[in-house]
Amino acid sequence: MRVGRTQEEMRQRHLSEVLRRVHVEGPLTRASLGERLGLNRSTIMSLIADLAGAGLVSEEKPAETGRAGRPSLVVAPEPERIHALAFDVAVDGVTAARVGLGGRILARREAVRPRAVLDLDDVVGVLAEFGRDLVAEAGPDTVCAGVGVSYCGMVRPDGTVRYGPFLGWADQRFGPDLAERLGLGLPVGVGNEAHLGAVAEHVRGAGTGLDDLVYLHGDVGVGGGIIVGGKLLDGAGGYGCEVGHMVVNPFDGRPCLCGSHGCLEAEVGEGALLDYAGRAHDLVGRAGIREVVALAEAGDTRAVEAIDRIGDWLGVGVVNLINLFNPAVVVFGGMLRDLFDGTAPRVRARIEAHVLPVSRERVRLATAALGDDTTLAGAAELAFAALLADPLTILEARRAHAVRPA
Amino acid sequence: MRVGRTQEEMRQRHLSEVLRRVHVEGPLTRASLGERLGLNRSTIMSLIADLAGAGLVSEEKPAETGRAGRPSLVVAPEPERIHALAFDVAVDGVTAARVGLGGRILARREAVRPRAVLDLDDVVGVLAEFGRDLVAEAGPDTVCAGVGVSYCGMVRPDGTVRYGPFLGWADQRFGPDLAERLGLGLPVGVGNEAHLGAVAEHVRGAGTGLDDLVYLHGDVGVGGGIIVGGKLLDGAGGYGCEVGHMVVNPFDGRPCLCGSHGCLEAEVGEGALLDYAGRAHDLVGRAGIREVVALAEAGDTRAVEAIDRIGDWLGVGVVNLINLFNPAVVVFGGMLRDLFDGTAPRVRARIEAHVLPVSRERVRLATAALGDDTTLAGAAELAFAALLADPLTILEARRAHAVRPA
Repeated sequence: MRVGRTQEEMRQRHLSEVLRRVHVEGPLTRASLGERLGLNRSTIMSLIADLAGAGLVSEEKPAETGRAGRPSLVVAPEPERIHALAFDVAVDGVTAARVGLGGRILARREAVRPRAVLDLDDVVGVLAEFGRDLVAEAGPDTVCAGVGVSYCGMVRPDGTVRYGPFLGWADQRFGPDLAERLGLGLPVGVGNEAHLGAVAEHVRGAGTGLDDLVYLHGDVGVGGGIIVGGKLLDGAGGYGCEVGHMVVNPFDGRPCLCGSHGCLEAEVGEGALLDYAGRAHDLVGRAGIREVVALAEAGDTRAVEAIDRIGDWLGVGVVNLINLFNPAVVVFGGMLRDLFDGTAPRVRARIEAHVLPVSRERVRLATAALGDDTTLAGAAELAFAALLADPLTILEARRAHAVRPA
Repeated sequence: MRVGRTQEEMRQRHLSEVLRRVHVEGPLTRASLGERLGLNRSTIMSLIADLAGAGLVSEEKPAETGRAGRPSLVVAPEPERIHALAFDVAVDGVTAARVGLGGRILARREAVRPRAVLDLDDVVGVLAEFGRDLVAEAGPDTVCAGVGVSYCGMVRPDGTVRYGPFLGWADQRFGPDLAERLGLGLPVGVGNEAHLGAVAEHVRGAGTGLDDLVYLHGDVGVGGGIIVGGKLLDGAGGYGCEVGHMVVNPFDGRPCLCGSHGCLEAEVGEGALLDYAGRAHDLVGRAGIREVVALAEAGDTRAVEAIDRIGDWLGVGVVNLINLFNPAVVVFGGMLRDLFDGTAPRVRARIEAHVLPVSRERVRLATAALGDDTTLAGAAELAFAALLADPLTILEARRAHAVRPA
């Protein structure tokens, strides 16, 4: 560990921490910022002055408190002036959004895609058009701080898609291509959807304030993002958290697209549910899942049994994750959110049967608090990451190199 | 995150980091310390002067380098003067050691215990006597920096045994009792054997320099310690890493002492091996395991099949750990070290079949580099932890409150 720091490094760290706080927690008084960061009043004031001078935050009157006396000003992020582009590339559709500093979605575009092996160029083209539109709408006095993409597959740190079975991409230059087609002079960060979903639920969702959480995301397959001690687990090569390929059924398992069999994703994914429910695969995606859920709620025996079976296998996976990670909460997102009410009884029964009491006592099961926007919100966090790490330097760079959409 | 730090806090952190470096890496020159820590020459010299003045390090001539010119002095830990007590409480025996700063074992005592539900008081009595002897031998000019215990079960952060099926303890005040019986005026830290083993192999074993590793420890059962991004995974309640209770055989699994069935520990532990090998349970422990290994090496079919079966189930567990953690290395310790040669082919076959290529490409399987001392070395790291975190304060406290053994 390098422990020596220059004055300049210290200041950058402090600016970063102030901006991160208001981005995550919303408007805060000077006093509460000082307390949270362990900094004295004059240091905090000078940091706020720098951030306000750059247009990243403003000081404003707080919402009516009902208390007498002059209210102290609060420091708030500038969501309209400072925004980011977030994209969500799922199996059946793509979403693009302009997200303000502070995390609010300001505008969005969506496109449904027919399920097929898609041409990367097509997807990049749609995303680029959406992105340019969204930035153009934002007006001339605004700054786009970055671009983040949530992608339904494995991604290398450089934004190359390493493995994306559901879209038929492998080792393609997705991030760099999108950056070029956007033509905004901005770098593009790409992350796995479940990893980003975990970050979003940790920062501003069902796991707020909890340093140990497991996020499970169902799309066609199942992905996982795991926050350990407040940080996303990434592993030695950045390929950790492959929860969907945890083997839960080693001997009689269903074949998985990864080439193995008995993976959690093979046992509880969309294909398994539709098979168990005896539904033809013509109505797939969320609509297909929701149809089975509705049938089960209406008492259809086969649909009920199918969801129970999914719950059983999902339970094995959840048990192992709880025994391994001792999380405070397990969050279910994507199609696993639709299946939550139906599967939770079996999942809880598995937990009762297999999880050690010490880990079972306190763990909570929850659905994604950000709903269907969890992965998009995670992409926005990725887009803001550079700005939050070094606010003034990055803002200046974005202003200097910004290209306005034609 | 609190980012503001006083001068005093900064200095403590720097002292901590210098001492930690020489404790872990051995003698280092001033220049290399400065480089590693990002501190300038005068700061480093003043830190070393403080540590040397307190008797924690000395500056000495390096071993012959063969190069011309005056060799620069190296900063070395003081292993004889500054030591710690480390205890290893395993199912079949207890070990005690005096370990010098820098990690070398200076002296040790061992006792074999018959396998039975032991009286906590007996064990504490044996450990206390060993500990007092070891400290008495060390001479009057020395300081015992702390006491650490590796325990074969679940431990609460306060040193209470939460769950220890193999020794029949539950919710007993193990750490506090041992501290009292030792009567040395020292706090006693207690940790799970596999967690401490992971730390030891990470700091000075098969995982040196690797920030993501999985350590599997076989005693009668199987425990795990997982280093994620350089830190031990502990979970929300400190009960993470329960690798032994990962369910690998959810439907036909062997019953486990935890009350569940199909746990990794039930499928690959000592009982499973001896059962599969058709060995009566009269020769248990390491001797029993080694007997089966010897038989298999001599070509005994049943012993070979038993080890293959263990390898198969162990492989399922290892597969899941690799897919979840994407570690650089999986380290096998305790009786899993004895079984390594026999089980590795099946484990590797499972990895080939089930692990995603991205995580499979680089992961290494290894035996514990510290041999049978891995957990004891982990206990020593726990014993030194307070001193390494705040060297001068803790040293002063130990000197002020030390009680010499009678």
